[in-house]
Amino acid sequence: MPEASPQKWHLAHTSWFFETFVVGTNAGQHGANPAFRHLFNSYYQTIGDPYPRSQRGLLTRPSLDEVLAWRAQVDDAMLDAIEAGSVDAGWVELGLQHEQQHQELMRTDLLALMALNPLQPCVLPEPVAEPGVVAQGTAAGAATAHPVAHEGRDRLAWLPVQGGTVRVGHSGSGFCFDNELPAHEVLVAPFTMARTLVTQDDYLRFMAEGGYRRSAWWLSDGWDWVRATGRTCPQYWRHDDRRGWVAYGLHGERCLQAAAGSNSDAARRPVAHLSYYEADAYARWAGARLPTEHEWETAAREHGEPLAQLFGECWQWTASAYAAYPGYRAAAGAAGEYNGKFMVNQQVLRGSSSYTSPGHARTSYRNFFPPSATWQRSGVRLAR
Amino acid sequence: MPEASPQKWHLAHTSWFFETFVVGTNAGQHGANPAFRHLFNSYYQTIGDPYPRSQRGLLTRPSLDEVLAWRAQVDDAMLDAIEAGSVDAGWVELGLQHEQQHQELMRTDLLALMALNPLQPCVLPEPVAEPGVVAQGTAAGAATAHPVAHEGRDRLAWLPVQGGTVRVGHSGSGFCFDNELPAHEVLVAPFTMARTLVTQDDYLRFMAEGGYRRSAWWLSDGWDWVRATGRTCPQYWRHDDRRGWVAYGLHGERCLQAAAGSNSDAARRPVAHLSYYEADAYARWAGARLPTEHEWETAAREHGEPLAQLFGECWQWTASAYAAYPGYRAAAGAAGEYNGKFMVNQQVLRGSSSYTSPGHARTSYRNFFPPSATWQRSGVRLAR
Amino acid sequence: MPEASPQKWHLAHTSWFFETFVVGTNAGQHGANPAFRHLFNSYYQTIGDPYPRSQRGLLTRPSLDEVLAWRAQVDDAMLDAIEAGSVDAGWVELGLQHEQQHQELMRTDLLALMALNPLQPCVLPEPVAEPGVVAQGTAAGAATAHPVAHEGRDRLAWLPVQGGTVRVGHSGSGFCFDNELPAHEVLVAPFTMARTLVTQDDYLRFMAEGGYRRSAWWLSDGWDWVRATGRTCPQYWRHDDRRGWVAYGLHGERCLQAAAGSNSDAARRPVAHLSYYEADAYARWAGARLPTEHEWETAAREHGEPLAQLFGECWQWTASAYAAYPGYRAAAGAAGEYNGKFMVNQQVLRGSSSYTSPGHARTSYRNFFPPSATWQRSGVRLAR
Amino acid sequence: MPEASPQKWHLAHTSWFFETFVVGTNAGQHGANPAFRHLFNSYYQTIGDPYPRSQRGLLTRPSLDEVLAWRAQVDDAMLDAIEAGSVDAGWVELGLQHEQQHQELMRTDLLALMALNPLQPCVLPEPVAEPGVVAQGTAAGAATAHPVAHEGRDRLAWLPVQGGTVRVGHSGSGFCFDNELPAHEVLVAPFTMARTLVTQDDYLRFMAEGGYRRSAWWLSDGWDWVRATGRTCPQYWRHDDRRGWVAYGLHGERCLQAAAGSNSDAARRPVAHLSYYEADAYARWAGARLPTEHEWETAAREHGEPLAQLFGECWQWTASAYAAYPGYRAAAGAAGEYNGKFMVNQQVLRGSSSYTSPGHARTSYRNFFPPSATWQRSGVRLAR
Repeated sequence: MPEASPQKWHLAHTSWFFETFVVGTNAGQHGANPAFRHLFNSYYQTIGDPYPRSQRGLLTRPSLDEVLAWRAQVDDAMLDAIEAGSVDAGWVELGLQHEQQHQELMRTDLLALMALNPLQPCVLPEPVAEPGVVAQGTAAGAATAHPVAHEGRDRLAWLPVQGGTVRVGHSGSGFCFDNELPAHEVLVAPFTMARTLVTQDDYLRFMAEGGYRRSAWWLSDGWDWVRATGRTCPQYWRHDDRRGWVAYGLHGERCLQAAAGSNSDAARRPVAHLSYYEADAYARWAGARLPTEHEWETAAREHGEPLAQLFGECWQWTASAYAAYPGYRAAAGAAGEYNGKFMVNQQVLRGSSSYTSPGHARTSYRNFFPPSATWQRSGVRLAR
Repeated sequence: MPEASPQKWHLAHTSWFFETFVVGTNAGQHGANPAFRHLFNSYYQTIGDPYPRSQRGLLTRPSLDEVLAWRAQVDDAMLDAIEAGSVDAGWVELGLQHEQQHQELMRTDLLALMALNPLQPCVLPEPVAEPGVVAQGTAAGAATAHPVAHEGRDRLAWLPVQGGTVRVGHSGSGFCFDNELPAHEVLVAPFTMARTLVTQDDYLRFMAEGGYRRSAWWLSDGWDWVRATGRTCPQYWRHDDRRGWVAYGLHGERCLQAAAGSNSDAARRPVAHLSYYEADAYARWAGARLPTEHEWETAAREHGEPLAQLFGECWQWTASAYAAYPGYRAAAGAAGEYNGKFMVNQQVLRGSSSYTSPGHARTSYRNFFPPSATWQRSGVRLAR
Repeated sequence: MPEASPQKWHLAHTSWFFETFVVGTNAGQHGANPAFRHLFNSYYQTIGDPYPRSQRGLLTRPSLDEVLAWRAQVDDAMLDAIEAGSVDAGWVELGLQHEQQHQELMRTDLLALMALNPLQPCVLPEPVAEPGVVAQGTAAGAATAHPVAHEGRDRLAWLPVQGGTVRVGHSGSGFCFDNELPAHEVLVAPFTMARTLVTQDDYLRFMAEGGYRRSAWWLSDGWDWVRATGRTCPQYWRHDDRRGWVAYGLHGERCLQAAAGSNSDAARRPVAHLSYYEADAYARWAGARLPTEHEWETAAREHGEPLAQLFGECWQWTASAYAAYPGYRAAAGAAGEYNGKFMVNQQVLRGSSSYTSPGHARTSYRNFFPPSATWQRSGVRLAR
Repeated sequence: MPEASPQKWHLAHTSWFFETFVVGTNAGQHGANPAFRHLFNSYYQTIGDPYPRSQRGLLTRPSLDEVLAWRAQVDDAMLDAIEAGSVDAGWVELGLQHEQQHQELMRTDLLALMALNPLQPCVLPEPVAEPGVVAQGTAAGAATAHPVAHEGRDRLAWLPVQGGTVRVGHSGSGFCFDNELPAHEVLVAPFTMARTLVTQDDYLRFMAEGGYRRSAWWLSDGWDWVRATGRTCPQYWRHDDRRGWVAYGLHGERCLQAAAGSNSDAARRPVAHLSYYEADAYARWAGARLPTEHEWETAAREHGEPLAQLFGECWQWTASAYAAYPGYRAAAGAAGEYNGKFMVNQQVLRGSSSYTSPGHARTSYRNFFPPSATWQRSGVRLAR
């Protein structure tokens, strides 16, 4: 998994960010070792040639203890600097938001690492109450409140979205990343949006109907990806002769095809860790499509609450390629490398996931990953 | 060059298209050999598993003579069927447009093949009058007619585009591909567009200022591409100790850095065979950006003629990823594979090139290639 | 098939050899084009950086006619030089032997190319009398003349070889390559050698007993090769639902599993196009082993005729890695690149094949290929 | 470095060997986790499909503490079984020899890992007295005792070796690996052997004379390797602007080009971490060659002590490919996978290194690695 990094590296990199961009290294916080500037630089060419991402796992030194000690030094230096009023508040805020992003990556990277271990480690205790199951449109109440479409293969409730000339992007005084700016108007034609996310159960039906065997539902690159990877199910799923389809997670393995009535809730959780290719193929199979990012944002602004699982479950792939908003300007210097240079070959995801740190996401938030990425908690919300 | 195909294959494939989708194989046009259905299928999974693209060059058989004889048979069958009124006119039109697209590919693929040959073959006679040089904005007349900006690194004339709520996509009764539909309204903010394309001379200045050595101008994927390929100049250019930078084309090699006054026109031709990464890096170096495809189309509709080199020189990379228009529906069956399944990981190019068959392109035409593609005649028009 | 070259290239390269090493280019034989020196150099670093082998197929120019015309010029120059007595007879001899080697490569490369073509071209007319079937040890006559072992899985007749302190390598006045020198003594312990080559029928039994599915018979690198290539049968074989195992050759496809009695001779031909890994695995399955090259040479010298199929059927893999004989000295200059620099990562093959030009091989001849090579006519003779 | 494994894995694998082949898993030594059988199997297909070597570094679990606890359990079980007389003494001996081999690998793998770390960790304290420098043939004493050749590029003392019909392989009652058997006679022609190993200083001269830039000294595969890897010096060396050539080792970095007189001993240490290709190219540059493994063994038996640095410095590449001795039989079952299945694509190394565990090597010992391997302490002794 060349995209994932060790936990120790994330701990070091987030302090590297504060040291490099806020308090500086003049104070000698990291003691005798200027190599840290190189080792824990992620991708800032402005700062220097970064240590190769795929080799981060080989860094047995500095040890975790050394990294934690260094973190404490940088934290102290930050506190002193904040007290002395000598810091740039924008960079402090950016550093905190940056650390929240890495908190999510620490969870996804931990999962990716553990999933490669045949011991199937159970890293977290099983939660008492499991989140993730939302009443579907077939429930009477929902059916009354919102018109429900039961056409074709989906069992979803649909909400109409009016659209028109709408404003997207971030407004107001709170923090946002530069890629959410400038707020601007776009034309969005009326459409309907699924009230809930696609579930594991839904996805099992797609698989049962030959989802991974028929090219007709797939983008050309997606079909090549299926054949090159030999993929027959989502990341972290596998077929067990005895138990049927099971999914590995930080809580260990869990059955997806339970005996009737026993724990049918399990399979009503949103399907996650899909690539864009899988999300798009599923949508085509279901007779629907993925929303654009502007549609997603418009629906979220129009409906709010009734649109379930917007945040806190799975990031939701959109049909929009990651690109600059009209009038976008990358910041000068190293901060300009934060978002702008990734604006090609990626798709936008909206919402947030159960791994996202509380308070981090918002309606205008634009997450982005390459279409083949599956190690994030990325799921599907359909549109029509 | 795994993307390119032999001339013989193009000849066979375009007849395969007519046979497969219009006249059928019942008439036994291709005699005893059903393998042609497999050999000359490009990417239609609906028809069957295609022969691998990268191995087309290994097909020494059927011979060119056999392919030409088969083409004649298919042509005859087409004429008979048209006369008999038994053909679907839509498919006939699509087949003709398809053949025009392959006429352009035959030129680009021929160039790609010849460029690999150290003999540097001169395939075409040198034209008497060379096209491609357009009076720049510095000329008095142009400067009067249109306000000219001479800021920073560019020497271009700029035209203001008003934008607003504009209609894009194809309207009217003429032919278009499904990806130009449906015509729809979009919001385009006011901007300015360069009157002419970026020239070879302009691009040499970018190179001279370290264009391929400084990461700051490049997208992250673009910089990785530069380092992985070792690229230091556009495709088909090389540095000659004696003559400086030279460019290979179907007319042979040509000097780009002529002695002062001798043939300075040469270097005022549009730079071509750029990847999206190069086009985007150039734009950033020049203090400008690439237009979106909607901006390009809007500018073309607003200005027409004064916007020089819209067609017939180089395809122009846009900042827009190739995606479905709102309400787009792929055709049913194999025709649905023509465009829709490629709508990811590609950028839209607008206009047409000197290799495009006459009458093929139009204002709403959407060409598309992956960002790393350089074997097409792809150039740059800047926006601000 | 990156190892194979087009027929045209072989034609050009063999004349390149004569021009480069015998008559020289001073006479201007190849007219205006010094690029031929680069294009048709195979691997002589002394002469200059060769054109990449894997791209030889892309050289549409010079045309076959141009190559043939150049060949005629070089031939004329050779005749003039020989008549004038101005040539080095050693180089002339080496050039002729070299051309014979390429005659065999032209056949194997042609087969490799045609085998990739789904049309399965029948390149040669079917011969009236098929060679290759030798009376097995089970025949009464053979059984009388030579003690026959019918132990385990083989049905072969075995000949005892006495060995001792024997002389190997080339002696006498005839031509030999430098790698056959110097002749020297080695100690060879007594052993037995199979009188005939392993047949297609034998090999089918190996396959039927799980030959490609059980790691126990394979070298570690061989097993990795089986898994990486997905190999389940020899090169050019495939399983046909209707006809069973069939083998493609220049005569077209031929059934290997004929109805009883009908053409059982077919399957008694020697199995060919095996990698060293397959040959070695087969030997282990059969409870035997491959002979060393010294054993092969000793057996051939001791027995002569009674040892069938020594020459003219299949090259025979030996257990000997290709290495220098004691006291070997590569020639000075470019001739030194002919053999010596390949003495690592290759295995020696002895004998000759039905593709070898008449008079080319001899008892001390050392052919060599990497263990994974399958496009040569390489088979198996067992030892114990 | 896909060939190297983490220290923890070596600790687990060597206990796995004892458990799997001696005491068995019936006693439940590794508690509840049968996955250990899979995780810590190196390459024994007989036991099951091994966990991929290249992913061993990803096994964060079991932890080092768990592995050490398991080792203690297996050790206890071994002691009980030995006391009870229920073990196969041959397997116990093999297990101990096997663990010694992994002790050396732990050192080479540790070095390979640390060398990737830009911190250049100093893992071991600098030894007080440095080994490795042997009086060269230029010393008066040596020159008297042994005839010294000062021809061409080498400064070595040479010892004549008589050879003849000599016995090689292991005899006597002590332990040996199966690949040292059976002892047998070979013919070895008279030759001379260098009294000492090639030094770092010698190798610097090779580099200074264009060693890595001229193809003439290299095997064809070696030259390809140089170009593919961009190699310009031995593994773990680099050029420092200030200090010249430096070598990284477990003691940290050390200068190779010291100021005259200061610590010239440093550069008289044997050069190590050479590939076979480098060793062979050096030999050709020096006007000499690598000895065969039989020559090495014969020289060691004839001369003993006067032949310096036979053991304890660097393994010495030989010109012999790793192959079975005449009459070699692999053991039945899993033990048969220990050596025999690697007998292709490898070269034999003789002697032992400073990393080899005391008492492990002997005159008939056959080490083997692929020609491109550089992470072992592999050096050069020349022959003529």
